[in-house]
Amino acid sequence: MSYLDEIGEFGFIERIKEMFSVSSPLLVQGIGDDCAVFEGREGWHTLVTCDVQVEEVHFKMELFPPFLLGRRILAVNISDVAAMGGLPRFALLSFVLRPDLEEKWLSEVLRGIKAEAERFKVDIIGGNLSRVAGSLVFDVTLIGEVESEHPLLLRSNARVGDLVLVTGYPGEAACGLQIILEGSKEEITRFERLCRRCLAPLPRVEEGRVIAESGHPCALIDVSDGLLQDLSHILEASGAGAVVHLESLPLSEDIRSFAREKVVDPFLPILSGGEDFELLFTAPPRLAEKLKAEIQRR
Amino acid sequence: MSYLDEIGEFGFIERIKEMFSVSSPLLVQGIGDDCAVFEGREGWHTLVTCDVQVEEVHFKMELFPPFLLGRRILAVNISDVAAMGGLPRFALLSFVLRPDLEEKWLSEVLRGIKAEAERFKVDIIGGNLSRVAGSLVFDVTLIGEVESEHPLLLRSNARVGDLVLVTGYPGEAACGLQIILEGSKEEITRFERLCRRCLAPLPRVEEGRVIAESGHPCALIDVSDGLLQDLSHILEASGAGAVVHLESLPLSEDIRSFAREKVVDPFLPILSGGEDFELLFTAPPRLAEKLKAEIQRR
Repeated sequence: MSYLDEIGEFGFIERIKEMFSVSSPLLVQGIGDDCAVFEGREGWHTLVTCDVQVEEVHFKMELFPPFLLGRRILAVNISDVAAMGGLPRFALLSFVLRPDLEEKWLSEVLRGIKAEAERFKVDIIGGNLSRVAGSLVFDVTLIGEVESEHPLLLRSNARVGDLVLVTGYPGEAACGLQIILEGSKEEITRFERLCRRCLAPLPRVEEGRVIAESGHPCALIDVSDGLLQDLSHILEASGAGAVVHLESLPLSEDIRSFAREKVVDPFLPILSGGEDFELLFTAPPRLAEKLKAEIQRR
Repeated sequence: MSYLDEIGEFGFIERIKEMFSVSSPLLVQGIGDDCAVFEGREGWHTLVTCDVQVEEVHFKMELFPPFLLGRRILAVNISDVAAMGGLPRFALLSFVLRPDLEEKWLSEVLRGIKAEAERFKVDIIGGNLSRVAGSLVFDVTLIGEVESEHPLLLRSNARVGDLVLVTGYPGEAACGLQIILEGSKEEITRFERLCRRCLAPLPRVEEGRVIAESGHPCALIDVSDGLLQDLSHILEASGAGAVVHLESLPLSEDIRSFAREKVVDPFLPILSGGEDFELLFTAPPRLAEKLKAEIQRR
């Protein structure tokens, strides 16, 4: 009776992919990457993605400041456009809310969405409001663009001999989440940066642009399920393998302190913590060096 | 404390409209019509809309056959593209589901979505799956296109002297809903056509195309909130008034029988019943005659 539990999200997506054939000549990339891609205005591809934040699954009202939740609702979607090397353009907000929701809380969520929208020059162009008796659901559709002259940065692009790179410090969001859920007030203050990395992740649009503008078909994905799992998405799509050297993984001072204090292996959150929304990508060694330098320069 | 109850869906949308300014030169039409519109591939505008079906709000599992629910999930969105005179192209499915959902039920929903997608040549190109403990949520983003040479069929296009027209028989869905919710098995069988009009509405894509291809800037909306309310959306946006002659309203045999049996005024569901997804539009008298003839011919 627990069908979805058995097959999981990826099993379900596979099922949808098998069941629905696509036929439009306008479609460039369907189900299976960070965004779907179709023919856009002259010189551009249109990117589209949707991602949802569900109460008690992705956030808890009593633990998540509503302003940061608002930023997060948009950020997780902008990140999918970043993971195609694209520029975010438009968003539609589909909210399923309890009628007795407090205005103040909702206003703060909207303020957070507005702040994130302004930061990334995203226009809110539509949406939908429905009521519900149960969990709040914030669904967002994000529309972006990427120049059609650039090769698409698909998960299937990795080639033998490529290096694997990642922006920022994956694992920080998972450490932050643990502190938010279980930590004392003092810990939340002390590890404020980690908590913020969990509550309000920063979409790596700028970094994605550097990779797109290289003109090389890098494999690119954002780290939402955890570094190892997202890397495996690239490897499966590309039919390739990878060796991960622990000593080469980026390890931040904050994760080091957190791991020491909690007596855990710091590589555990780095490899399997999700929701960092860092960019994970592959490139031939010489290009990898160039991209690293260019990303650090910006 | 009941903020959303106080301001309602339209109040909330007004609030969002006021709060979020838009700046993209690519945007043709933002919040406030059936779809948002932005610059598309050469010769076309891209249309985008999202609408949601929430358990216990829009459907009840025990009353709605899952196959028809699947069709409905897509149909209500395709209808918004029809209400811009557009052609539906792509859909993203965002599902928020209980993990213990039965496979058989979900498969039937997917079969219904597939049937509707094939009927209207819509490709499913992406989506998202999340879990929830409470109500099921089926959110769909629909992307369509309309030729940029045609004037947009906006709610604000109505002009003094125009006639008001509507496709099909508004009110049938509301009668059907009442039978589904309160009727006996015998009634459900006898009024099967009305029930079907409620469960599986038919998006009027073909009719929307006739209106678009006329090249005249008709005001156009789909009847989701009820004929009078949706007409008032057109009138408010256009700064116009309208006289509705009861004897000119389309009154189907089924509504007549239903009203007689239930001893209700048949004009009540016609004027205020929602969810018919018929097209309500305005046109100057001579064009109105032509459109009527052309729609009946197809």
